[in-house]
Amino acid sequence: MNYDVVIKDVYLAKGDGQEVANIGITGNKITYIGTEKITGKETIDGKDMLAAPGWVNTHTHLAMTLLRSYADDMQLMPWLQEKIWPIEVKMVKDHFMWGSYLGVVEMIKNGTTCFNDMYFMMEETAKVVEKAGIRGVLTRCVMGDDPKNDIRLQESREFYKAWNNQANGRIKVVYGPHAPYTCTNRYLQQVIEDAKKDNVLIHMHLAETQFEVDTCIKEKGKTPIQLMDSLGMFEQPTVAAHCVYVNDKDMDIMQAKKVAVAHNPQSNLKLSSGIAPISKMLEKDILVSVGTDGTSSNNNLDMLEEIRTACFLAKCDSKNPTVLPATQALEIGTYNGAKALRIDNLGKLETGYLADIVLYNMNEPYWYPHHNLVSNLIYAASSNDVDTVIVDGKVLMKKREILTLDEEKIKFETNKIAKELVKQ
Amino acid sequence: MNYDVVIKDVYLAKGDGQEVANIGITGNKITYIGTEKITGKETIDGKDMLAAPGWVNTHTHLAMTLLRSYADDMQLMPWLQEKIWPIEVKMVKDHFMWGSYLGVVEMIKNGTTCFNDMYFMMEETAKVVEKAGIRGVLTRCVMGDDPKNDIRLQESREFYKAWNNQANGRIKVVYGPHAPYTCTNRYLQQVIEDAKKDNVLIHMHLAETQFEVDTCIKEKGKTPIQLMDSLGMFEQPTVAAHCVYVNDKDMDIMQAKKVAVAHNPQSNLKLSSGIAPISKMLEKDILVSVGTDGTSSNNNLDMLEEIRTACFLAKCDSKNPTVLPATQALEIGTYNGAKALRIDNLGKLETGYLADIVLYNMNEPYWYPHHNLVSNLIYAASSNDVDTVIVDGKVLMKKREILTLDEEKIKFETNKIAKELVKQ
Repeated sequence: MNYDVVIKDVYLAKGDGQEVANIGITGNKITYIGTEKITGKETIDGKDMLAAPGWVNTHTHLAMTLLRSYADDMQLMPWLQEKIWPIEVKMVKDHFMWGSYLGVVEMIKNGTTCFNDMYFMMEETAKVVEKAGIRGVLTRCVMGDDPKNDIRLQESREFYKAWNNQANGRIKVVYGPHAPYTCTNRYLQQVIEDAKKDNVLIHMHLAETQFEVDTCIKEKGKTPIQLMDSLGMFEQPTVAAHCVYVNDKDMDIMQAKKVAVAHNPQSNLKLSSGIAPISKMLEKDILVSVGTDGTSSNNNLDMLEEIRTACFLAKCDSKNPTVLPATQALEIGTYNGAKALRIDNLGKLETGYLADIVLYNMNEPYWYPHHNLVSNLIYAASSNDVDTVIVDGKVLMKKREILTLDEEKIKFETNKIAKELVKQ
Repeated sequence: MNYDVVIKDVYLAKGDGQEVANIGITGNKITYIGTEKITGKETIDGKDMLAAPGWVNTHTHLAMTLLRSYADDMQLMPWLQEKIWPIEVKMVKDHFMWGSYLGVVEMIKNGTTCFNDMYFMMEETAKVVEKAGIRGVLTRCVMGDDPKNDIRLQESREFYKAWNNQANGRIKVVYGPHAPYTCTNRYLQQVIEDAKKDNVLIHMHLAETQFEVDTCIKEKGKTPIQLMDSLGMFEQPTVAAHCVYVNDKDMDIMQAKKVAVAHNPQSNLKLSSGIAPISKMLEKDILVSVGTDGTSSNNNLDMLEEIRTACFLAKCDSKNPTVLPATQALEIGTYNGAKALRIDNLGKLETGYLADIVLYNMNEPYWYPHHNLVSNLIYAASSNDVDTVIVDGKVLMKKREILTLDEEKIKFETNKIAKELVKQ
């Protein structure tokens, strides 16, 4: 059999990472992993490289790359009111396009092959995803009071019709109510109805801060999780971003209704929100995945760094260093992300799975000694070690050169437009 | 004037990083920073690069790189008793030499120009420091009961005599009692006497875990900090590694006696020790510096990553996102480290300061936009962006190639000897 792409002599990121194999890809699937000699139309030398499934980033606001380093080290309200919101209202199509381009370039270069994005003017992001070759779950973020004739809901539905399942199925469109404090109950009910009608996922910020939870209980009589449950949201698959403040009853609901958590440890730390109790969630068999949040509050889209922080915090928070070991950490950043986004056959290096594969060059000194290559990846390596990225069977990056986009032009144009924007 | 080394057109890591200048180096000092055209025997093009002082890592166990990824995700006692200690007793000269080589290669490549190391067979580490051109503060770690005729204390004194101020002053030797739970009071008194006699720094683990503090109070009637104070340790300059569990009275002593903290956030998280209250320490004007600890519990020597974690934790722990902003973070990783180690004129990009300079290549997408380059460094960049490293006026690395050591040979030999060691 002649494969479309063959990766030769590569270490596999499983167990302690000592197994070397050849990987065969046919179309968009992994069709062979083993030690037989195989041939392909395209052959990639995997020597001294580690192959892993691509990262699945389950919570981003991609075009916010435009605002990276524009406003750091501030209190939440002045940050939003004086810096972020006044800029966001000035943003037009081109800003969302260039911000999305920069974000996608960064993600491909750090080994992220799929992401779950919630922002505005999402057609711009969808076009970038289509061109770049990455996998994206996209939603037009909505918020409001009265759902009748709401322009945001209409745009959201139109975006679904136009873009769901486009780009060989690499693009999925879902529904994204912003947060409990920006949507009324009747508004949320409409979003839930839309999601049920089209049978898609819901992506929402939930229980990010103590203030949000306290206010929700005071004004609406329930915790954010219990409120959404009572509105019937969790009858649809839901990705709940943050979940920093969830109590035992909330977690029982999340477990029973299979609510997936998008854990954003670095954003939660940087904004002083808190530490989500993911060791407890994992104990309760809640599906925990990882996201970076936007680059205004992180400030990068580096999933390896995010996973490492997740491990460290889970160990410290639970007072148990055996919690979230390296192999499980790899899994929550890949397979759990795919499960959270309800994408079948994604996130594992196994035959039958989608060929979204990342090769790490193990040349830097922190990869030595080779006692355990998965530990080295999770606890010591850098995203800059990513050498080659394959999504849906197509090679998007080779030796750190992106083949589908003009990285230099994107950096230049984004810098120019971003600097002009903040000067307006 | 003709400088020895000139760095042209480089961004300076100060304020928001928008200032571009030329830097002149004469001998081992920075002798010019400004916009005049200057010439040198050696010229480095700094275009699109950011110049910063090199990192000062104030707590390491360098040769432990040999054990990186050998034993992770374990409880402290089985980790020490079943894994680390049985291996350490088997380690001979060559292990310490290769472990030190690997560690120094990693540090130079991540922009660390000075480190404070505590381990065994330190002559091997000293020889590596001399050859590599890095700056090192070294101590033979001592522990015991009876100081009389103690071989470790004798080795420590001999190491001081042989190596202090060697390598053009790049090597300093200090005294390093291990911890309150491995040294008796009379043993500590001897170390303090030795340090006073030679007028050197003391480097010690202090208040790392709740268990250590509880045991110290139970057995010796005082907290670790108060015990060391009562023994007169803090009459000598002291670097206290960890300080996770320190109360207000401890902190008042640390402030009054100018005890420098080596904060090791990642090791403290990974081993579930806890989070050191550094926002409170900074408020009390205690000198806080940052260290990585050994690579068995971190698992790399990446100071940028460590500083970023320190920022995030300080913001979350204090519930205040304005705590430890980017410019201060850069300072605690550089100038505060130099002050902790009592090295004058180190850790700033200013004329008269030692020429320990790192150039970051700002090519990767997470450096864009250029709103604030210091924020981009602290919150978004990677240590792999380090392009050029200068220590004591000498260029040690250029375009990521180390000029003083054979990196490939070091990785190969270290991997071989480490794999043989764990198989013994």
